[in-house]
Amino acid sequence: MTMINECDLNIPKSGLPRLVIVGGGFGGVSLAKELRDQEIQVVLIDKHNYHTFQPLLYQVSTGGLEPDSIAYPLRKILQDSPNNYFRLAEVLEIKPNENSVETNIGEIGYDFLVLATGSKTNFFGNTNIEKNAMAMKTVPQSLNLRSLILENFEDALLTDDLNKREALMNFVIVGGGPTGVELAGALAEIKKGILPKDYPDLDTRIAQINLIQGSDRLLATMSEQASEKAEKFLKKLGVNVYKNMRVTDYDGYNVSTNVDDSFEAATLIWAAGVQGATIKGLNAKDLIVRGNRMKVDEFNKVIGFDNIFAIGDIAMMESENEPYGHPMVAQPAMQQGKHLGKNLLRLIHKKTLLPFKYIDKGSMATVGRNKAVVDMKKFKFQGVFAWFVWMFVHLFFLIGFRNRVVVFVNWVYNYVRFDREARLIIRPFKKKNKL
Amino acid sequence: MTMINECDLNIPKSGLPRLVIVGGGFGGVSLAKELRDQEIQVVLIDKHNYHTFQPLLYQVSTGGLEPDSIAYPLRKILQDSPNNYFRLAEVLEIKPNENSVETNIGEIGYDFLVLATGSKTNFFGNTNIEKNAMAMKTVPQSLNLRSLILENFEDALLTDDLNKREALMNFVIVGGGPTGVELAGALAEIKKGILPKDYPDLDTRIAQINLIQGSDRLLATMSEQASEKAEKFLKKLGVNVYKNMRVTDYDGYNVSTNVDDSFEAATLIWAAGVQGATIKGLNAKDLIVRGNRMKVDEFNKVIGFDNIFAIGDIAMMESENEPYGHPMVAQPAMQQGKHLGKNLLRLIHKKTLLPFKYIDKGSMATVGRNKAVVDMKKFKFQGVFAWFVWMFVHLFFLIGFRNRVVVFVNWVYNYVRFDREARLIIRPFKKKNKL
Repeated sequence: MTMINECDLNIPKSGLPRLVIVGGGFGGVSLAKELRDQEIQVVLIDKHNYHTFQPLLYQVSTGGLEPDSIAYPLRKILQDSPNNYFRLAEVLEIKPNENSVETNIGEIGYDFLVLATGSKTNFFGNTNIEKNAMAMKTVPQSLNLRSLILENFEDALLTDDLNKREALMNFVIVGGGPTGVELAGALAEIKKGILPKDYPDLDTRIAQINLIQGSDRLLATMSEQASEKAEKFLKKLGVNVYKNMRVTDYDGYNVSTNVDDSFEAATLIWAAGVQGATIKGLNAKDLIVRGNRMKVDEFNKVIGFDNIFAIGDIAMMESENEPYGHPMVAQPAMQQGKHLGKNLLRLIHKKTLLPFKYIDKGSMATVGRNKAVVDMKKFKFQGVFAWFVWMFVHLFFLIGFRNRVVVFVNWVYNYVRFDREARLIIRPFKKKNKL
Repeated sequence: MTMINECDLNIPKSGLPRLVIVGGGFGGVSLAKELRDQEIQVVLIDKHNYHTFQPLLYQVSTGGLEPDSIAYPLRKILQDSPNNYFRLAEVLEIKPNENSVETNIGEIGYDFLVLATGSKTNFFGNTNIEKNAMAMKTVPQSLNLRSLILENFEDALLTDDLNKREALMNFVIVGGGPTGVELAGALAEIKKGILPKDYPDLDTRIAQINLIQGSDRLLATMSEQASEKAEKFLKKLGVNVYKNMRVTDYDGYNVSTNVDDSFEAATLIWAAGVQGATIKGLNAKDLIVRGNRMKVDEFNKVIGFDNIFAIGDIAMMESENEPYGHPMVAQPAMQQGKHLGKNLLRLIHKKTLLPFKYIDKGSMATVGRNKAVVDMKKFKFQGVFAWFVWMFVHLFFLIGFRNRVVVFVNWVYNYVRFDREARLIIRPFKKKNKL
């Protein structure tokens, strides 16, 4: 029987130190796994009851995968460990003086707090774009984008206004990082392989996929070789690549940029930046740095606090190689989660903490069928082999055996049949938003 | 290039007779498939862009399957046939005098009209129940139910009010037909196999699954042998089966019945009846009969009209064996769709029409792991073999190779691991509805 205590979300005081983890992404999950069956009470809080494998969200948006196959129940990750608790809640505020966090379902005290809240889309203060653009950071957002893309094609069929039809079939993707590149490639393949068959009564050549990058090359965090190849692959697929261009405004139809070009597009996908998803309550000097991230020391301890840590996208750890912190991707989050788990146990056992060292395992992006770019420390390669590596790595890091099999089946099917069968408008987007 | 004509949803006049099919369920899809590459223009209209395999919706609700694997893009069904058109639209009214139908995206004329609108939940005029109960006829409804079930468990964890906790874990299923029986079995297995592992801090024995049937036996349309076995299987799984009981009211918490029993339950699933999903505009004497279905002759022609037909759930065809029409399930719809396709071609070629004859291929229901009941003309059997037959038949009738493989993979996984991994609250239900 559990002790009933409203203040602590009905989680019993166990005598063990209590760790509260905010966020069930790559970082939070790695940490919780590392502390399985250890002498510490772990309370994982997330506003979703599932972990999202964000690198494949773009395939959900483009009808290649079911949302359920890239999500995994968080309760299942915590199963079989008697000291683990999950609460479906949104954290509203941290109260460091009381060692507690305020959530929408009540307050909970902690001995240690780990912020693994990840990042959210950064619109850089442009409220028009925020209001009218589509983002792709969560499963519901990806499904909204999927619905919108399909709804636009249905509407394009019906209109007699040729400008409007073009705008409905015009896709502007802002941001030439991995998300933008992969989404552009997927849309180009839909244009080529699916649209002509699904819409024989529509001139699908009108459809345009525009990828807009602020700097002078795509995949700016990767090698120049990767950038060049990715751009070449995309252009071969028919994607219009614009570099040194920034989108300055969007009213849902007209796209303004900082140069002479402008677009009319019913869909603008904003993949141009992320920022740390901070929570209010931590007020220390110089805590929030570049990219809205929180400064942490080499043990992931948040600057100015003794028992509060941060890992993954939200954490900015300066190092010699990474003066602006580690890249905001899965690998640093997973490595930090695992490392912090070890350090928390050392802390409990009064051992000295070990500094975190990031092992860069490389980075990669796929552009489409048989095409990917991979940068590793010693090897950089592009093309078919890179594409196989990309698939293998993504299947490997996907959580859950069933998810891996289902994703694999879908990929094989999509590859053999040049198809994407999950092109379903399960929840209409326009109707809801009265666009 | 297509002709532009606002009146006809931008579908060109082709010189061929135009058939408009309303509804992409089992009936509409069979008919469209039968008329592939024939000398007739087929326009299929549906308010969803996908076909729903309704018999497996209960597995979506209970986290056993992804919604995308039991839905199939309607455009793909019509692909590769140049005379086929699809429009995503809701039909608002039939105008038989003008040979046209009014939709939310415009009007379209027809030479032949086939109503394949299926059925909708029948609340028998009880508006309280309609407002507060969950239905399970569409994919979004099934996903809402999935979210609600999971949200209720999360809330049960948090409350200190034991009555409320019991109500949150109390499930009332109204209707002992195949849907009610299959859902009750699935919930009972979740209670047994998943709840204790997912919610170690909750006394999951409290969870109750109540199945309420108005008549004196479950699966009233099947053999008595099947009814008895199904009830036995359910009771063994811990389901409370109530017969000769009708739910008379539900305010979202208190369930009233026509007998002394009453329940407090945060979830009531209404599977107690369906009615034809009629569309306004057809005003003929004695047209609408029992169950809100439309009377049709032996050629599926709607009584009182020359070029309007109805197939499947919406159609009530009297026959010697079936004085109240065929059962409102997939088989008659599919057979009528196929048969009507042949008859429409005969009609165009001025041949006499052939009367429809229903071939009853039997009926079946699964109760849970290794347990199903099957009635065939000559054989009636229950248990493990019946369960294999049930699975085989459902996989066979599922549309799409990918869907079959994905469903199969899920079933094998769920069976081997006693698990259901799609227990994801992708779109919260309560938050939206502020329950």
